Amino acid sequence: MLDVCLLGSGGMMPLPYRFLTSLLLRYNGNNVLIDCGEGTQVALKKKGWTPKPVGLILFTHFHADHISGLPGFLLSLGNAERTEPILLAGPKGLERVVRSLLIIAPELPFPIEYREFSGDTEFDWEGYHITAFRVNHNVTCYGYSVSISRSGRFDAQKAKELGIPLKFWNPLQKGETMEGEDGTVYRPEMVMGPPRKGLKVTYTTDTRPTENIVKNAAESDLFICEGMYGEEDKISKAKENKHMTFTEAAGLAKRANVKELWLTHFSPSLPNPKEYMGQVRQIFSPAYPGKDGKTLELQYED
Amino acid sequence: MLDVCLLGSGGMMPLPYRFLTSLLLRYNGNNVLIDCGEGTQVALKKKGWTPKPVGLILFTHFHADHISGLPGFLLSLGNAERTEPILLAGPKGLERVVRSLLIIAPELPFPIEYREFSGDTEFDWEGYHITAFRVNHNVTCYGYSVSISRSGRFDAQKAKELGIPLKFWNPLQKGETMEGEDGTVYRPEMVMGPPRKGLKVTYTTDTRPTENIVKNAAESDLFICEGMYGEEDKISKAKENKHMTFTEAAGLAKRANVKELWLTHFSPSLPNPKEYMGQVRQIFSPAYPGKDGKTLELQYED
Repeated sequence: MLDVCLLGSGGMMPLPYRFLTSLLLRYNGNNVLIDCGEGTQVALKKKGWTPKPVGLILFTHFHADHISGLPGFLLSLGNAERTEPILLAGPKGLERVVRSLLIIAPELPFPIEYREFSGDTEFDWEGYHITAFRVNHNVTCYGYSVSISRSGRFDAQKAKELGIPLKFWNPLQKGETMEGEDGTVYRPEMVMGPPRKGLKVTYTTDTRPTENIVKNAAESDLFICEGMYGEEDKISKAKENKHMTFTEAAGLAKRANVKELWLTHFSPSLPNPKEYMGQVRQIFSPAYPGKDGKTLELQYED
Repeated sequence: MLDVCLLGSGGMMPLPYRFLTSLLLRYNGNNVLIDCGEGTQVALKKKGWTPKPVGLILFTHFHADHISGLPGFLLSLGNAERTEPILLAGPKGLERVVRSLLIIAPELPFPIEYREFSGDTEFDWEGYHITAFRVNHNVTCYGYSVSISRSGRFDAQKAKELGIPLKFWNPLQKGETMEGEDGTVYRPEMVMGPPRKGLKVTYTTDTRPTENIVKNAAESDLFICEGMYGEEDKISKAKENKHMTFTEAAGLAKRANVKELWLTHFSPSLPNPKEYMGQVRQIFSPAYPGKDGKTLELQYED
């Protein structure tokens, strides 16, 4: 129902087999990108997908490895004949940065809308509920939780008992209130059970571990977290550069009680993240190293 | 002596196996890049090379596919610990465009120098002689000829006959004029033969065929020319978008009497340029389709 694809898993600099940071979420024909490092448009093409349904790009921050692919991506989007607006959202200053980059993409066939945050915030977009939360990097940086809600179960027996006309069943399931010809009002809550568990993905890179991450990642189906360094002895470097080690990420995953952890945003000095997964899994067992093109189709429970 | 590597052969949009436009020239420890599309830094890493010796980047024009990789490339250059200046050269407006892009790479450990052209021009850089010449695109665009000159042969017999002290032989070969203790002046032309044929590479993309290209590409050892379209029936599209077909490029190569032609800057709609080489070779036999990573080591004659 919610498809997740890690397009690029590289931090700072790309490697021949590792594009820079980008995550793609696909749900119901509207796609969301989080970050857009150099090569994002190529990574997408490698999957055989078109950029056209991408209508929202969320930026964690404006370091080049997270945004350098934007001009090319938007040009490809135009070339894919998108004419609907695209929303770009991220920290304060986003519009200034993007306008500056667009000096090499001055003519795009779709309007660009901007949404800048000046603190933790929530908003809805095309069925996605998005929470942007501050993390702790050397510049203002946000993590994102993206949720898909799921309505309660429709009780057909109850609808029959209440004599609700059949033609209202579908609108009621979609959450619409209907009125019969005799003036009777039918509300969704009359026939719908309590909301069921939806889907939740949390993504955070370029940050030290924080309580805000644990809080926002809580109960995620998938938690994608930076792991700049695999080596335990790089903890001081991680602190200095405001990044994390693999085991720090695992600690967050455990405390947030997520279902699955993917590590990403690897240092170019880390050619083989797999090597360090042993110690990660001692802390949090369902942990996996991210790699370019890694996908997961998240399904509703039951 | 002069190594040429086509880092990226894609025009307009990259494909999974085709980075955007970029050419690397390597000579005597100082490297020149022509254009820097998205993925250039990755293409370079794929060859196993460091960006550090790149001290000059020439830009044909500012369409995104020719410059979108610049912020990432410069950041990688900084990361490779370059501290010497880098010279960026291209059409008027270059500094404004680059400064705008560098909003995501504000701190680089080397100075950037700019050289903007307002017409055909020539200059020397670290042993390279560079000619920038106007071509015919829908924005101001330049082609480049890059030459390495070669001095004449040293005549040891003559040096002996003239009684030139042995310690002056090497400086004279390097073109220096020397003076003996008795005041005798020794000039290179006394012992050096006439300059021998050097090496010449000409590179031009994003243009219709022009006389200026034929003139500047004349007698090149390697002529790298755009071939946006392989299909002959795309000639009207080529004219409209100010590009070329393969056979038009072959016609230029023949008239310029070059040694070898590489086609590049392929349309994303052209997945397999090889298919169209038959008709190209009927016009100009030593013609090859470019592809990412294609290299040639140009050697002096004899």
